[in-house]
Amino acid sequence: MGSLSELFAPESVAVVGATDREGSVGRAIVTNLRDEFDGSVVPVNPNRESVLGLDCYPDVGSVPDAPDLAVVVVPPQIAVDAVEEAAEAGVENVVVITAGFSETGSDGAARERELVAVAEEHDLNLVGPNSLGVMSTPVDMNATFGPEKALPGSLSFMSQSGAFITAVLDWANDQGLGFKDVVSLGNEAVLDETDFVREWGDDPDTDVILGYLEGIDNGQEFIRTARDVTDDTPIVLVKSGRTDAGAQAASSHTGSIAGSDEAYEAGLEQAGVQRVETVQELFDYARALSGQPLPDSDGVAVVTNAGGPGVMATDAIGDSRLSLASFSDETISALQDALPDEANVYNPVDTIGDADIERFRSAIDVALSDDGVGAAVVVSAPTAVLSFETLAEEILALQEKHGKPVVTCLMGGESTEAAADVLREGGIPNYFDPARGIRSLEALSEYRDIRDHTVEPPAEFDVDRERARDVLRGAKRRGDNRLGVEAMDLLDAYGIPTPEGDITDAPEDAVSVAQDIDGPVVMKIVSPDILHKSDIGGVKVGVENEDVYDAYEDLITRARNYQPDATVIGVQVQEMVDLDTGTETIVGMNRDPQFGPLVLFGLGGIFVEILEDTTVRVAPVGRDEATEMIDEIKAAPLLRGARGRTSADEGAIVETIQRLSQLVTDFPAILELDINPLVAGPDGVQAVDIRLTVDTDKL
Amino acid sequence: MGSLSELFAPESVAVVGATDREGSVGRAIVTNLRDEFDGSVVPVNPNRESVLGLDCYPDVGSVPDAPDLAVVVVPPQIAVDAVEEAAEAGVENVVVITAGFSETGSDGAARERELVAVAEEHDLNLVGPNSLGVMSTPVDMNATFGPEKALPGSLSFMSQSGAFITAVLDWANDQGLGFKDVVSLGNEAVLDETDFVREWGDDPDTDVILGYLEGIDNGQEFIRTARDVTDDTPIVLVKSGRTDAGAQAASSHTGSIAGSDEAYEAGLEQAGVQRVETVQELFDYARALSGQPLPDSDGVAVVTNAGGPGVMATDAIGDSRLSLASFSDETISALQDALPDEANVYNPVDTIGDADIERFRSAIDVALSDDGVGAAVVVSAPTAVLSFETLAEEILALQEKHGKPVVTCLMGGESTEAAADVLREGGIPNYFDPARGIRSLEALSEYRDIRDHTVEPPAEFDVDRERARDVLRGAKRRGDNRLGVEAMDLLDAYGIPTPEGDITDAPEDAVSVAQDIDGPVVMKIVSPDILHKSDIGGVKVGVENEDVYDAYEDLITRARNYQPDATVIGVQVQEMVDLDTGTETIVGMNRDPQFGPLVLFGLGGIFVEILEDTTVRVAPVGRDEATEMIDEIKAAPLLRGARGRTSADEGAIVETIQRLSQLVTDFPAILELDINPLVAGPDGVQAVDIRLTVDTDKL
Repeated sequence: MGSLSELFAPESVAVVGATDREGSVGRAIVTNLRDEFDGSVVPVNPNRESVLGLDCYPDVGSVPDAPDLAVVVVPPQIAVDAVEEAAEAGVENVVVITAGFSETGSDGAARERELVAVAEEHDLNLVGPNSLGVMSTPVDMNATFGPEKALPGSLSFMSQSGAFITAVLDWANDQGLGFKDVVSLGNEAVLDETDFVREWGDDPDTDVILGYLEGIDNGQEFIRTARDVTDDTPIVLVKSGRTDAGAQAASSHTGSIAGSDEAYEAGLEQAGVQRVETVQELFDYARALSGQPLPDSDGVAVVTNAGGPGVMATDAIGDSRLSLASFSDETISALQDALPDEANVYNPVDTIGDADIERFRSAIDVALSDDGVGAAVVVSAPTAVLSFETLAEEILALQEKHGKPVVTCLMGGESTEAAADVLREGGIPNYFDPARGIRSLEALSEYRDIRDHTVEPPAEFDVDRERARDVLRGAKRRGDNRLGVEAMDLLDAYGIPTPEGDITDAPEDAVSVAQDIDGPVVMKIVSPDILHKSDIGGVKVGVENEDVYDAYEDLITRARNYQPDATVIGVQVQEMVDLDTGTETIVGMNRDPQFGPLVLFGLGGIFVEILEDTTVRVAPVGRDEATEMIDEIKAAPLLRGARGRTSADEGAIVETIQRLSQLVTDFPAILELDINPLVAGPDGVQAVDIRLTVDTDKL
Repeated sequence: MGSLSELFAPESVAVVGATDREGSVGRAIVTNLRDEFDGSVVPVNPNRESVLGLDCYPDVGSVPDAPDLAVVVVPPQIAVDAVEEAAEAGVENVVVITAGFSETGSDGAARERELVAVAEEHDLNLVGPNSLGVMSTPVDMNATFGPEKALPGSLSFMSQSGAFITAVLDWANDQGLGFKDVVSLGNEAVLDETDFVREWGDDPDTDVILGYLEGIDNGQEFIRTARDVTDDTPIVLVKSGRTDAGAQAASSHTGSIAGSDEAYEAGLEQAGVQRVETVQELFDYARALSGQPLPDSDGVAVVTNAGGPGVMATDAIGDSRLSLASFSDETISALQDALPDEANVYNPVDTIGDADIERFRSAIDVALSDDGVGAAVVVSAPTAVLSFETLAEEILALQEKHGKPVVTCLMGGESTEAAADVLREGGIPNYFDPARGIRSLEALSEYRDIRDHTVEPPAEFDVDRERARDVLRGAKRRGDNRLGVEAMDLLDAYGIPTPEGDITDAPEDAVSVAQDIDGPVVMKIVSPDILHKSDIGGVKVGVENEDVYDAYEDLITRARNYQPDATVIGVQVQEMVDLDTGTETIVGMNRDPQFGPLVLFGLGGIFVEILEDTTVRVAPVGRDEATEMIDEIKAAPLLRGARGRTSADEGAIVETIQRLSQLVTDFPAILELDINPLVAGPDGVQAVDIRLTVDTDKL
């Protein structure tokens, strides 16, 4: 059991601010608790003798045994004191319903800081403030002021919107969808989404963790926790504020600083979270994951009595990560035996409109027996020869017999209701629309891969951290926060290959560096103030040794003429990189407010600038993840020998991504970094140019 | 009224094959008709005196007044005779329910051909065979053997799957969704989807045309008809068999030859059809289009009493073609007056959880008054201070007052039911999920653009058709069906610019052609048997005049050595095209079995081969459509001066697409054609190479 088990299963609950005034929150909570709760309910209010027939205490300290949980509904001005008093009386779990904290401006924010200080001092498990409350069905506890109570079930649900909980419960009760715990997270002053993910991951009675979130406070901790939890328990989230308009609305709603949705997308995927976009998907996923086993394989059998709807189901499979199963010869011959001549014995199996229950049953049975079938969808139009209810019972029995996931599309209205009840009881998702049924199977397949996926620990390369720190401090020494090619040594310190060469600050040095390099060289002006070097003629390509001296002087002159007050560090003299056999790629990084360092990979030029063909991961990035990043790029075939090119050394790219990941994880001072281009050739990679921004205070 | 008005509104219906045998189709149809139909029902069966209490006639000829419609349910062996007999008795409309025609093999196919011959001879409006029947609610006619009858309404619905109709009616009756006409298309031996689109386009009682189709017989005619109809009446279709697996399933279901989904996608869009993927979307679109006015603009106001759900609605807007409206200063100040301080007066408007009906109403009223607001979505969580039903009534009144489309998301279960009924009556779509509500508004916006869109007639360029025909016959003369660069004249005949040059068959001629061209030339072997010319050294670039003679001989020798029996037409001598300022594009065409010529555009090389960044249109293609094709290409910025390039002459590309469209429309013999590359530079385009395949029988 998790550390919050007492919060959800207290033996006694104090309601601080209990009252019987009609329409008040205090009354609503006492009523909700008194009516059903297995434990004892203790109203606390210095102005009352009793509330709704229960003995009332003036303060929590006066209650004979310290309650396990205090629900605080007093006005904001006295809420912090009330929490402190409860803590001093020995209460360890507190739900602050009271609003008027950080969501209301600076006074409220100050009040919230006081609340956090009290919670930390007493090591409180504190939900809220500004929360609708919490529920837990095993002990029949409804410690919310909402009008609805959850049905018992195995879903645990958290929400940053209290109203959304009210709406969902109203609807779910109608749908027969049950919950284990429900939490309205409120302002998350103390306990946040990560705490509840951890708690429910440890809870044997929670089969699926659901959430509506507008922001995640600490992305890195969330990823670590969720990765661990999703080995046993699926997590399905709506993270809203996906779009620019939505993010702005979310930010004005909860006051959260909007991180980029790209970071959430990457972070949630790395966390093993199944992110969905709509309310409908959230609960469709919940139903499937809580009701059905996971498929061993992705081959789906479609069994129907109606050709057209069978085609629709097949289309939906074609749109999904699943595939239409190919039947074995035995299956086909068994179907031929079981079905009339006009039937289609190939997948999708069409048992024909006059199929009775026995024919339909046999076809499903045979299809589920095929080893190539991981799951089945049964699609039925209403016909005179078929009772949906009997069909539902047969399907339940077959699902149990074969232990493979099954979803149904009993297509109709009222005529399906009794059957739908049977299927719901048995945990089989049933929708009119075949596309929703297939999506449910997809949810199972996704989670199977998440459960089976092992995240390898990121490699720890042997690097020269001190040398890297020294390079980064170069910016600080110059009173700047930007670094350019003068930071190539940073890459060298972290084992990322760079072309031969050096920064020189005298023409003689340039000549001497050039002489050590085979063949002609590239020379570039080095100045943090000159961003577009090529535009001012600050780059010379293919310079022969005998021209290096003059080229040096010319570059310096051009820089001075262009911008007399520019800081000029010198001239970089660099080996020519073979761009004929190599492909220009980009490896970069920026820092997200919630998730920290985001590592980016893409092909250079038009692929980044016009086609936006890039992919990101939250660092640290392991080898498998770095490899996936290359796979995700649409233009990846260009690295793999498409159109007569020589294949690039992918291993070297993967290693560069990992080394960069280690660098930006080691140095929180690096705010942004781009290696552009990283030229990937058949014999390895070379980082030709670099640009970065640092937070000098962190060095 | 359309030409099929009698089919849907007959005064008398004969049921040929009527019987009272329990469980028979003949009995089901007579029962369905007898119970409700406004007109008279005439059973026809030589073996009965009466059927279900109605006088029965031995044949249609014996019925005193010829019936307006005959529904045929006799066995397949005598069905064609029965239809002929009815026709001879003066019946003009026939629905053949009987199965056992082309869907069952070659005997059935022969029978269907006979049926078509009879129908043509007598000019019959014939539905089926293998149809579930037809319904029309204004005359309460249910001439189907299905168990459910449609509720009255303004949707007309056709389906190539009878089972899907059964399922939809069962469900729609439960949802209060009504229909004008319903047709089960069956095998479409005579009347097909295009006929019903035309009919319903002329029908003032049909507000929306809906269809489930697995194939469209004559794509070109469908496009022409649907374009015309969608000026007044929206058409929403599920065209299944979208995916490879689905297409195969559809083909085995209906026996239709699968055209490419790319052609359907382009053709349906050009037809103004709103194509949806799922059953849910089909009816969500139907509800919105039949119940709400079209928005003048795409700015949407969100008004809610719950922050979280408001963010979800905003996200859904961000995902859609719509935008979050920006309020005017007057609106904001009016909202400030109407709402408490904690409310959010900017879009999405949050009236806060304690909003009563009057506050909510004012906010919606103010928002809908803003000129920048084209539509509104009202999102409400259940609260103690709000009756959903009253809110629904207020929303209806406000929708009528402002005449702008409104959708609602009353989030809850049973508590929303009375309100949902009110909204349904008033034509306002209501869903729990904000994403579905926004999608409904999107359907309206899409249709507004379709309605307002004028398709210009394709330009008719002045071309040399005879010369083109002569080039195409070149293949026939050689006994081949392929043409290569020797067909460059074809482009010239259709006014598509080609580089200077010619095909030569002697070295002296090659020299003379080269001398007429400025600068060095490109020389290529011309042979239909050598596809990859470069691979065998069959292309020489930058040949100076003095080297042309030897180059000619060398090319011929290489061709002979490579493939001694190859037909060698000669050597092409061509002006060098400037690839530095030009961009390689591809303009191509292939012929789809349903839609005919499909014209393709894309950028050359990796963009086509790896990124599949191409777009197609069904020819003939007008100027606007050709322009849209360029807009749809992701890499289009490369033609528009991205990354320091010179902008290409887009007008010349657009004209080339149109001229190619004219060429392939003029010559059905052209099966496939590729201009690759078409080099697009700042001063126009040049078609550098061509390859095509012709059907020599059509020349």
